Amino acid sequence: MKVMVLLSGGVDSTTALGIAVDKYGKDNVIALSVMYGQKHDKEIGAAEAVAKHYGVLHLYLDLSKIFQYSDCSLLKQSDEAIPEISYAEQIKETGGETPVSTYVPFRNGLFLSSAASIALSKGCSLIYYGAHADDAAGFAYPDCSDAFVNAMNEAIWEGSGHQLKIEAPFVKVNKSNIVKMGLDLKVPYELTWSCYEGGEKPCGKCGTCIDRAAAFAANGVEDPALK
Amino acid sequence: MKVMVLLSGGVDSTTALGIAVDKYGKDNVIALSVMYGQKHDKEIGAAEAVAKHYGVLHLYLDLSKIFQYSDCSLLKQSDEAIPEISYAEQIKETGGETPVSTYVPFRNGLFLSSAASIALSKGCSLIYYGAHADDAAGFAYPDCSDAFVNAMNEAIWEGSGHQLKIEAPFVKVNKSNIVKMGLDLKVPYELTWSCYEGGEKPCGKCGTCIDRAAAFAANGVEDPALK
Repeated sequence: MKVMVLLSGGVDSTTALGIAVDKYGKDNVIALSVMYGQKHDKEIGAAEAVAKHYGVLHLYLDLSKIFQYSDCSLLKQSDEAIPEISYAEQIKETGGETPVSTYVPFRNGLFLSSAASIALSKGCSLIYYGAHADDAAGFAYPDCSDAFVNAMNEAIWEGSGHQLKIEAPFVKVNKSNIVKMGLDLKVPYELTWSCYEGGEKPCGKCGTCIDRAAAFAANGVEDPALK
Repeated sequence: MKVMVLLSGGVDSTTALGIAVDKYGKDNVIALSVMYGQKHDKEIGAAEAVAKHYGVLHLYLDLSKIFQYSDCSLLKQSDEAIPEISYAEQIKETGGETPVSTYVPFRNGLFLSSAASIALSKGCSLIYYGAHADDAAGFAYPDCSDAFVNAMNEAIWEGSGHQLKIEAPFVKVNKSNIVKMGLDLKVPYELTWSCYEGGEKPCGKCGTCIDRAAAFAANGVEDPALK
């Protein structure tokens, strides 16, 4: 069986790739990375290094034109600053009823649909998707929720004529347990990039830096990307 | 309420646009047309003329790179000929178990996801989508089926944080009834283009030409695009 893995170059998708390669073998795995107009391209560089580490075919896609009308703070065209507080605090601010300012409109739906189109052309019957429980909490990123993933899986299954499914191994797993799984599989976290800013080193202040640090700390190890 | 209409320039989506403008007013309607690497661009020209007729904002998107790996007979890179038989006959050939050769892998899922991203940025809360009963028959185009549209609607509702829905007014309507609805609303069918070939005039032989002719005949009128 051939598998396509959506690879951003961060902790979650890199762990998903590690699991897929472990389970199906590197020759049956294709990584897909999507540019969507982020303020920096550190993630893509990380995805490239990770794919090279595993020796899998790596495809790229630029969907930034689709997001040209969005004012999401992650995107190049936005003047809005990326919040320097944890997701938990951002959710307090939104009241848990609207997405956070770093939500890119229906981004993950679009990533999965693009992956589905390419996966079908490449003979894959499974898409691996690293959405996880923490991201979906409090409506922060509704396109990481269990309800979204289930519906999208159904849409891809039906819309492909029963040829393709999604597997989201972390949809009920939190980030510290993802890191635990990845450490067991010797996932090369030193190659990954999570920070929303594009500096020389991770900023340590944005929501994703804070959550990543906490996930490694919970496993009693130092984040290898900070060494 | 603002509405985004996926507009290919064919009979179904043009009728969907006519209904949306009738219901919500032209200033609340945005048309979105997607290029996906078709062998010809007659459809896009038709979509442009239709949007101009209705006086709605018209956006374009080129997703052809996503389909570069597909060998679908509709696409530029394919040497496969477009079948010159009706859908009903094509379905007999596939046994009703796999999509027909003009199925573009997960195309409509990708169109709807792209529309969702842009609709959210443009403040729309509804996407109009002209999928209809005939196209879904016998698994020909699984991304036109009721099951697909329901799942995709759920995915967009959940993935957008309950901000956006799909409406597919024809999902249980056949093409001759769509034409009936459109004739009542004075939809400008003379501006539309359905044929899969890109000739000066419609070929009259491909599946979509055959079905279109039958739909007008069932209403006792001549297809205005043939005049």
